Amino acid sequence: MTATNDRIVTDLGKPVTDEEVFAAHEGGKLDIGVPRPIEDPRTLAIAYTPGVAKVSNAIARDPKMAAKYTWTHRLVAVVSDGTAVLGLGDIGASASLPVMEGKSALFKTFGGLNSIPLVLNTTDVDEIVETLVRLRPSFGAVNLEDISAPRCFELEAKLIEALDCPVMHDDQHGTAVVVLAALQGATRVLGRELGSERVVIAGAGSSGIACAKILIAAGVGEVTLLDSRGIIHSGRDGLNWIKQEMAEVTNASGLRGGIAEALRGADVFLGLSSSQVPEELIATMAPKSVVFALSNPDPEIRPDIARRHASIVATGRSDFPNQINNVSAFPGIFRGALDAGATRITEGMKLAAAEAIAAVALDELDADHIMPSALDPRVAPEVAQAVAAAALRDGVA
Amino acid sequence: MTATNDRIVTDLGKPVTDEEVFAAHEGGKLDIGVPRPIEDPRTLAIAYTPGVAKVSNAIARDPKMAAKYTWTHRLVAVVSDGTAVLGLGDIGASASLPVMEGKSALFKTFGGLNSIPLVLNTTDVDEIVETLVRLRPSFGAVNLEDISAPRCFELEAKLIEALDCPVMHDDQHGTAVVVLAALQGATRVLGRELGSERVVIAGAGSSGIACAKILIAAGVGEVTLLDSRGIIHSGRDGLNWIKQEMAEVTNASGLRGGIAEALRGADVFLGLSSSQVPEELIATMAPKSVVFALSNPDPEIRPDIARRHASIVATGRSDFPNQINNVSAFPGIFRGALDAGATRITEGMKLAAAEAIAAVALDELDADHIMPSALDPRVAPEVAQAVAAAALRDGVA
Repeated sequence: MTATNDRIVTDLGKPVTDEEVFAAHEGGKLDIGVPRPIEDPRTLAIAYTPGVAKVSNAIARDPKMAAKYTWTHRLVAVVSDGTAVLGLGDIGASASLPVMEGKSALFKTFGGLNSIPLVLNTTDVDEIVETLVRLRPSFGAVNLEDISAPRCFELEAKLIEALDCPVMHDDQHGTAVVVLAALQGATRVLGRELGSERVVIAGAGSSGIACAKILIAAGVGEVTLLDSRGIIHSGRDGLNWIKQEMAEVTNASGLRGGIAEALRGADVFLGLSSSQVPEELIATMAPKSVVFALSNPDPEIRPDIARRHASIVATGRSDFPNQINNVSAFPGIFRGALDAGATRITEGMKLAAAEAIAAVALDELDADHIMPSALDPRVAPEVAQAVAAAALRDGVA
Repeated sequence: MTATNDRIVTDLGKPVTDEEVFAAHEGGKLDIGVPRPIEDPRTLAIAYTPGVAKVSNAIARDPKMAAKYTWTHRLVAVVSDGTAVLGLGDIGASASLPVMEGKSALFKTFGGLNSIPLVLNTTDVDEIVETLVRLRPSFGAVNLEDISAPRCFELEAKLIEALDCPVMHDDQHGTAVVVLAALQGATRVLGRELGSERVVIAGAGSSGIACAKILIAAGVGEVTLLDSRGIIHSGRDGLNWIKQEMAEVTNASGLRGGIAEALRGADVFLGLSSSQVPEELIATMAPKSVVFALSNPDPEIRPDIARRHASIVATGRSDFPNQINNVSAFPGIFRGALDAGATRITEGMKLAAAEAIAAVALDELDADHIMPSALDPRVAPEVAQAVAAAALRDGVA
């Protein structure tokens, strides 16, 4: 790690070329290591027959021993069906694999966790659950990734029910945790409280809905959620089940209409929509507004333009100030859950993660540094510790 | 590797203690590595978003690109349901995991292949096939391990049919390949030909049946196969389907009875039975006989006793001369198959593997060194090259 406690230079330097990207993917991005070398008859007899039989027998007698004597206690399965890969959409399992390998590389780099990508040639929720139930003894936790909404909500709920280990859909909850941490930082810089904020979320996919939920749980004043057809409210026809649920708990003011109606007087804009928002609408927000334009690679509004009207602007990109990136959250969340031996990941653990992220750079906060860098090596250990403590408090470890 | 071209010292030195075995298993035996470090915004932008999107798009356009830009082209899934683990029997998936981790460690150490253990909480053949079909984009080959007979035959056949990648049940074919290599070495030392040998195989489980098949394919004069009830012949009642098949192709002399009747005048005894054979019966074999007592940890007969009557004695143990160990075969077989891009593992590839193993130590052969050491680093590359060439010859690459 060259990333240190110093703030990371967010400029990438000279542009990254296609040749450079493809060269860096040749042969894949992961490798199996053998920490204790097998190099002579003695080490072979210990790691394999006859020695290994003693360990297998011990686990057969007491299944809890598997946590101590196999790699599963630190092993996350990164699972995808390739239906909602980055901004690319439903490109299939095989094409999603480079993303999952990257995710596994990040688990190792930031969380010190082993991780294997498992990409599935089925998009049937029950078949995915069944597959992971059959494979349960092979891993210690499941990170769901790039699975389309609203299937992802059903899949996550069923998996949490079916498996006795931590399960988290990172596109939902990793995003929600870092957004909450960033908003905590932003309100601190502005001297405000979460309870006074009116937040507008554009995008009611997996991340938009999870962000709405965590912001409500954290005490944000009011949340208004929009999909491509406008503000979600209980009077709207044709809402799917999850949007109906969200209509009940958001939009207390009973707003109707589109993004223009929603943004007028709002304190915070959170873009998770892959659409564009015109400067004129950002200009209608409340004074000292906050804009998180998180779509990648093209933010909902260019940050230099948003900054003309907003006091704080963040994006998902590393080449602008205030990058909001899931990598601040998921390695520490899973590490903490596994360290604690947690059987699931609770709302309390996610809130604790957000608070831990926000707390890392508390004395370095300003309008261009509302949260620690995505590459800050202090973050994951702090998150892990806070999440493990929350797991104990919540009685799941 | 301290193992070199020198013959490996087979003595383990001081006895391996339980403490030593358990300490060497703490935390498991595998580790994920990230060969190209993610350490700054630039490397993050290449390995993950936005860079990785280019690679995912390329694979979405041309699925063949997955072999070049993911880790699957060198990745073996080591799959078990834990029904026939070492000599321990049906101890379940979780308890089998240390063995599978060991297998993966050997794949890396000797074949330079990545490998992930996938242990399954189901013993239903069709469910195992279905699970691996769903996971197909996640790996490049399947090594089946420690699956009970006769289910293992059906499972392997169905998987070969269902998957377009190399699939091999190592307990069958890895054992068969090293046994054939050892027998080639033994007959060379004795100045005989395979075609003149009468071989008696005690044990009609997965390895016994696979050994019978490969020895017949390699031209061994006659094979007699026994299960716990005695010689398998077409007149016997209650044979399962695989034993009925074997009755048709073995025991040309029409022998009846048990191990005593089978061994009288036989040239080779191959023990794969976890039972004991009395010295008196070994004494009835033909002059200059060969005894491979491969049960672990207790050979069918102690090698020093067998040596009173037989010219060549081998076991599965590293602390006696002539260890016959699958590790001589499977790393090179899978490496060769994956290097060639083979869609399956043919009989020709297995025979080529056996010949390659036998050829490595050709000028070092004597009665106590009928094949290269299990730890000889020359073996896997030679096997891989021979297997890849055979794949091309057989039209599966």
